[in-house]
Amino acid sequence: MSDLFWPGDEHAGDLATEASWLAAMARVEQAWLDALARAGIAPATVELAGLVSPDELPAVARAAEGTGNPVPALVALWRGRARGPGAAWVHRGLTSQDVIDTSLVLLLRDAVKRVLAQLRGQVGSLVALADAHRGTVIAGRTLTQHAVPTTFGLKAAGWLTGILDAADALGRLALPAQFGGAAGTLSAAVELARLRGAADPAGTVSGVVADATSTLGLRPVPAWHTTRGTFTAIGDALVACTDAWGRIATDVATLSRPEIGELAEPAADGRGGSSTMPHKRNPVLSVLIRRAALTAPALASTLHLAAALAGDERPDGAWHTEWPTLRDLARRAAVAAHHTSELLRGLRVEDLRMGATAAAAWRDLTAERRAMAAFAGGEPADDPYLGLADGALATVLARANAYLEATR
Amino acid sequence: MSDLFWPGDEHAGDLATEASWLAAMARVEQAWLDALARAGIAPATVELAGLVSPDELPAVARAAEGTGNPVPALVALWRGRARGPGAAWVHRGLTSQDVIDTSLVLLLRDAVKRVLAQLRGQVGSLVALADAHRGTVIAGRTLTQHAVPTTFGLKAAGWLTGILDAADALGRLALPAQFGGAAGTLSAAVELARLRGAADPAGTVSGVVADATSTLGLRPVPAWHTTRGTFTAIGDALVACTDAWGRIATDVATLSRPEIGELAEPAADGRGGSSTMPHKRNPVLSVLIRRAALTAPALASTLHLAAALAGDERPDGAWHTEWPTLRDLARRAAVAAHHTSELLRGLRVEDLRMGATAAAAWRDLTAERRAMAAFAGGEPADDPYLGLADGALATVLARANAYLEATR
Amino acid sequence: MSDLFWPGDEHAGDLATEASWLAAMARVEQAWLDALARAGIAPATVELAGLVSPDELPAVARAAEGTGNPVPALVALWRGRARGPGAAWVHRGLTSQDVIDTSLVLLLRDAVKRVLAQLRGQVGSLVALADAHRGTVIAGRTLTQHAVPTTFGLKAAGWLTGILDAADALGRLALPAQFGGAAGTLSAAVELARLRGAADPAGTVSGVVADATSTLGLRPVPAWHTTRGTFTAIGDALVACTDAWGRIATDVATLSRPEIGELAEPAADGRGGSSTMPHKRNPVLSVLIRRAALTAPALASTLHLAAALAGDERPDGAWHTEWPTLRDLARRAAVAAHHTSELLRGLRVEDLRMGATAAAAWRDLTAERRAMAAFAGGEPADDPYLGLADGALATVLARANAYLEATR
Amino acid sequence: MSDLFWPGDEHAGDLATEASWLAAMARVEQAWLDALARAGIAPATVELAGLVSPDELPAVARAAEGTGNPVPALVALWRGRARGPGAAWVHRGLTSQDVIDTSLVLLLRDAVKRVLAQLRGQVGSLVALADAHRGTVIAGRTLTQHAVPTTFGLKAAGWLTGILDAADALGRLALPAQFGGAAGTLSAAVELARLRGAADPAGTVSGVVADATSTLGLRPVPAWHTTRGTFTAIGDALVACTDAWGRIATDVATLSRPEIGELAEPAADGRGGSSTMPHKRNPVLSVLIRRAALTAPALASTLHLAAALAGDERPDGAWHTEWPTLRDLARRAAVAAHHTSELLRGLRVEDLRMGATAAAAWRDLTAERRAMAAFAGGEPADDPYLGLADGALATVLARANAYLEATR
Repeated sequence: MSDLFWPGDEHAGDLATEASWLAAMARVEQAWLDALARAGIAPATVELAGLVSPDELPAVARAAEGTGNPVPALVALWRGRARGPGAAWVHRGLTSQDVIDTSLVLLLRDAVKRVLAQLRGQVGSLVALADAHRGTVIAGRTLTQHAVPTTFGLKAAGWLTGILDAADALGRLALPAQFGGAAGTLSAAVELARLRGAADPAGTVSGVVADATSTLGLRPVPAWHTTRGTFTAIGDALVACTDAWGRIATDVATLSRPEIGELAEPAADGRGGSSTMPHKRNPVLSVLIRRAALTAPALASTLHLAAALAGDERPDGAWHTEWPTLRDLARRAAVAAHHTSELLRGLRVEDLRMGATAAAAWRDLTAERRAMAAFAGGEPADDPYLGLADGALATVLARANAYLEATR
Repeated sequence: MSDLFWPGDEHAGDLATEASWLAAMARVEQAWLDALARAGIAPATVELAGLVSPDELPAVARAAEGTGNPVPALVALWRGRARGPGAAWVHRGLTSQDVIDTSLVLLLRDAVKRVLAQLRGQVGSLVALADAHRGTVIAGRTLTQHAVPTTFGLKAAGWLTGILDAADALGRLALPAQFGGAAGTLSAAVELARLRGAADPAGTVSGVVADATSTLGLRPVPAWHTTRGTFTAIGDALVACTDAWGRIATDVATLSRPEIGELAEPAADGRGGSSTMPHKRNPVLSVLIRRAALTAPALASTLHLAAALAGDERPDGAWHTEWPTLRDLARRAAVAAHHTSELLRGLRVEDLRMGATAAAAWRDLTAERRAMAAFAGGEPADDPYLGLADGALATVLARANAYLEATR
Repeated sequence: MSDLFWPGDEHAGDLATEASWLAAMARVEQAWLDALARAGIAPATVELAGLVSPDELPAVARAAEGTGNPVPALVALWRGRARGPGAAWVHRGLTSQDVIDTSLVLLLRDAVKRVLAQLRGQVGSLVALADAHRGTVIAGRTLTQHAVPTTFGLKAAGWLTGILDAADALGRLALPAQFGGAAGTLSAAVELARLRGAADPAGTVSGVVADATSTLGLRPVPAWHTTRGTFTAIGDALVACTDAWGRIATDVATLSRPEIGELAEPAADGRGGSSTMPHKRNPVLSVLIRRAALTAPALASTLHLAAALAGDERPDGAWHTEWPTLRDLARRAAVAAHHTSELLRGLRVEDLRMGATAAAAWRDLTAERRAMAAFAGGEPADDPYLGLADGALATVLARANAYLEATR
Repeated sequence: MSDLFWPGDEHAGDLATEASWLAAMARVEQAWLDALARAGIAPATVELAGLVSPDELPAVARAAEGTGNPVPALVALWRGRARGPGAAWVHRGLTSQDVIDTSLVLLLRDAVKRVLAQLRGQVGSLVALADAHRGTVIAGRTLTQHAVPTTFGLKAAGWLTGILDAADALGRLALPAQFGGAAGTLSAAVELARLRGAADPAGTVSGVVADATSTLGLRPVPAWHTTRGTFTAIGDALVACTDAWGRIATDVATLSRPEIGELAEPAADGRGGSSTMPHKRNPVLSVLIRRAALTAPALASTLHLAAALAGDERPDGAWHTEWPTLRDLARRAAVAAHHTSELLRGLRVEDLRMGATAAAAWRDLTAERRAMAAFAGGEPADDPYLGLADGALATVLARANAYLEATR
């Protein structure tokens, strides 16, 4: 998959594509049907994978308009095509939202996993950068102006802290399954268990839920049809990532301006060229990362809005806003993760330029030091005036190394 | 085209698809090349349409990552495939952003046209509804509670005002072309005119711009690479539409609750069914319209953000956020336009139920009237207590009819 | 008024303060009551101004919680304190939303007027800048990198276009009064007219609406309690302003970086100092303007959301979101207007630095020119390679001068 | 404090007012100065509390414009007014952002604490409601239409889950201090330590940071001037709260419609009255809560945007957007917390009406059951068709009781 409107989209691969969603929905229905069969409610199971081809999705999408979601059309196809006594049992006891929410959770779990892998790689790149440049003096800049000296290592450590915070936010997510039936009570499933002779219909269905949830590797919780914290938390965590990346890209875009020239994006074939100016090397990775970071907060706010408006047992529009929003957030985060990894792996640090600029600005950069000496009495020292830069960097590196160790 | 994540997407047809964008970009390059040739700068023109197939767009999209946009890859294909002396002249004098911005304007002009046509139809539907129900008494509801009586006609007239305001906002847009070259000066084009012997290179290029702009039917203005009011104005106007529709859908969703039952969505095969509950008729059009209205404001805010951050002669990320945002706004607006038209054309007004509810609540609905009588002295009248409802409705109908007349 | 959390807030003066809102609400009630009296519905009018002191607003605000808005508490005070037969007639026929909406319109009209005055001044400053620097060569920068030469005059003309577009958007607003009564029908007013012996109660009340609307200098339209385009249009227009200013501030912040040094904010006592670094001159105006531009789009999106959720005859929460949102947008826009005016009036253009940078980068800046010559044959010219810069600038100046003429 | 534009604001009390901010800034400077003195860097400390009166804040706010923040003006006042050798040492080694960020953290810690206390009370109310109504049958509603039966207890348990999730999100926050000096290196502090004869200047300053951080009860981390996850995480957690409340308010607003009448807001003097309709009882708490929930997501998105744009060692506008945004989020959350607590404490559950509606709709509500029987064979049972409602409720209650126990 690719998207002409979002260059780089192909790096998200099959993440949250229509075909992946179809597969995830099939997987959820399969887990449920298998559990129904194992519990003796359904007489048998059937294999759903492959019964509906991705080529048929445009027709499914069109049918989805009538019911407001694609599940009824898919269920009709699955029931019609599967063979054997289990066929008619597909989806029995579930509601569309169960399938959609759980399958979206599966898609997002995939996104989280991919992004975490990228973040881990970025931690490695940044540890190396920070470590290598713990002594590389650079002009500290605040409100665009030269302030006091710092090191490029400490700047990289600041980026690294953002990445570690984002990884913590993503890693903390505990993704649940959604099995609730029409209004969160699983009434149809319990009725079916009774009709099929279960001695303890409610207990049997509780077991089915536990079974299907476990098959999918998700967390068992009561139905959350109108309690949407699962999706807002995922959205917030993904935006924590794009924030961390966007801030790095903002720095790289600034510092690779020709008048500053302290950083340069990795040189790569076809990266950063212009359609008319042969000399240009645009910081295209930073541009594309910033693009993602600028659009993500508004998407996450849509998820929160949907959560606040989730009325009744299932809401009248709020829920439907979540699907493309989550898809876009997930894919854009995956693409930006890839771009940031590439950027950090190959970032060119022009330490001579950093040094030259700092040297040229040294009088301004040490004005604070002289003011301190004038205030407290005594002579300014003549070391690089780096304060606790090294200690702060060491603290961040220790955290990063612990993270790398813990996630090995 | 369809989108499993946005049921109903197919109603937007080929609006702002990748293939449409390709065609629009080709059209912009064609208009420019033709104008170059007519002005004697290019030795000849070539026909670009069809040289690149939509099937090749995934490859173009992948190439777009390197330069940050798809134009360089397309230009290479066009130049390589066109035959004759004009081939090498494709895109000469332009920058990628010229082509992307102008082609997006063309896509959006299409969106505006489609939505205006739908709005016009909705005006017709609402004029009929308002007119037919100018005497249909309904309980006025404020902060969810019964207030005083009104008419369903006046409620429809309120919806109609929103539609007319949105149509005015859309109709007022004057869409410009973007031709500026690398930094807004068209320096390369002027240089080419000079090299090709133009007596007045600047005047010749001004003529080329006017020619190409006129061919495309757009408004001539100086380059606006970092003056993004064109796109924010389109975004705001499209959101004015989704606001107007969302408010109607909110009313319909409420009034079609079974306990209220004063409105019902049009009955249609496959609309509003449930995967497990055969009796249900969900207000699925309203749900889908509300979905669009809840996501659109955040998208428009992204366009404004991009405008505020449009620095230098062309910006470092802000611009790239606009493309998918405009695409999504345009397609979602087109889909919601379709849904609202369908909703209004077939809306079922349960006037008996309206009357029955109003009658049952009459004492509360006329409490204000009694309070007025107690205050001012005298007896409450016993007409339906509708105040200026009819006059207000007539004012709106007159505006609507003038609109229909003016847009005939 | 000032706001520690929003430095510069005092430049908004009494715009949309609680006291101004009180005065505006009194003015609306006064216009209505006077019109009732002139129409013979109320036996007399009374003077409301000054009856409630701003010092009492905390108590009014507390009372507002019970009813959800401050009008009932104010009405009780006005009725209780006014003397004469008109006292009891305060607010008769209106609903709280009439008073709140119309008074907010008055506050916003004030904001629009103030901002338009600032914009006009900015147009003057930018005309002067663009004109003075039509020959000042500067490196054009795209995606942060040097592109081709342009002039600072043309850059200023681009800023100017944004300002003119924003002024057009603001100037186009036609602000309406809101008089609808409990559910938009003015039923109570008509009932009072009847009880008070009017021969044509509906016609009499229509006249009262026209009278009060005209007194306030607003546009007469049917009640728009749940048709919120008035406020979204104002919000969008104010954001068009902050977009235009934000883009200028983004440029100034970049170009005043010490490594670039092509612009500097006006020197002024106390502007841009640091708490610890005596040498610093932070571009504090640009920083404060950018702050406004970064927060405004989200505020405007809240207004659109409120419009989309405006159900029934008056909505259940959406309306209440508008008040502080409009207040914040109005005040922040007024403050940013002031800051931008100050910035543009005193902007220091370092044309020598611009020239030096362009000269040093000339080979890159003219790479496109050489590529054109290589392509088309012939020798590159050796003028400053400015293309149509001057013509584009002249077009913008002509528009600006026409604007200044038209708004004299 | 109160706010005419935000009825109910006074429930936030002194939370994040200007005076509270002043006190928090004084507290941060005090902790730092005390630590400097204890470490022997400053010769003595001085008492800052009370040196600047809240009455002076307008002047401070005006001065804040020049430097972009209020700290320099306050420092000048503190140094000028304090007596003794420590006076001149106020703020030495810090930058304005240290003081502002850490003091905002203190304000937000207060907000978190207050909101957590309210959430705990809400958990108690909801446990009681859920427990009392575990057998109260109510029509389940999906997409506005009757679906299958559920219990009001389970609905309350769903609300409760949202509250518990929000409490977890808030409770997880670990709030850090910010001490970094001009560019995050604490260079000035280290220089001062050296000048004052410290044997190990860096170690001494590390101790000062640890001391001041511990005094304030905050978490010690390296400087995070441009790593803004602290504030985005707080924002996201506060929005998780408003989401949870907003969803409850959405349900209450719907279910207290007169045609449904299954819930009613607590009766209280002055709550829910109308300015013209004596019979009305508006669900004003729900309205005010929804207002907060509709505005909060956009505010949180502003914080994320600021995080993504936090460039250099301290950014050029992004930072300044955070202050009023955090203030508004904190106060609005505190107010909405209060309103939700009041709503839940006194919520009137009309169980007879719930039963009557469910009974009247029983045929529809059990259509699914009949469909199951038709499908699986056998007769529908005639119990209330509640599936696992009771078990799901018990799971939520167990979690709630564990929470209450753990937070006792």
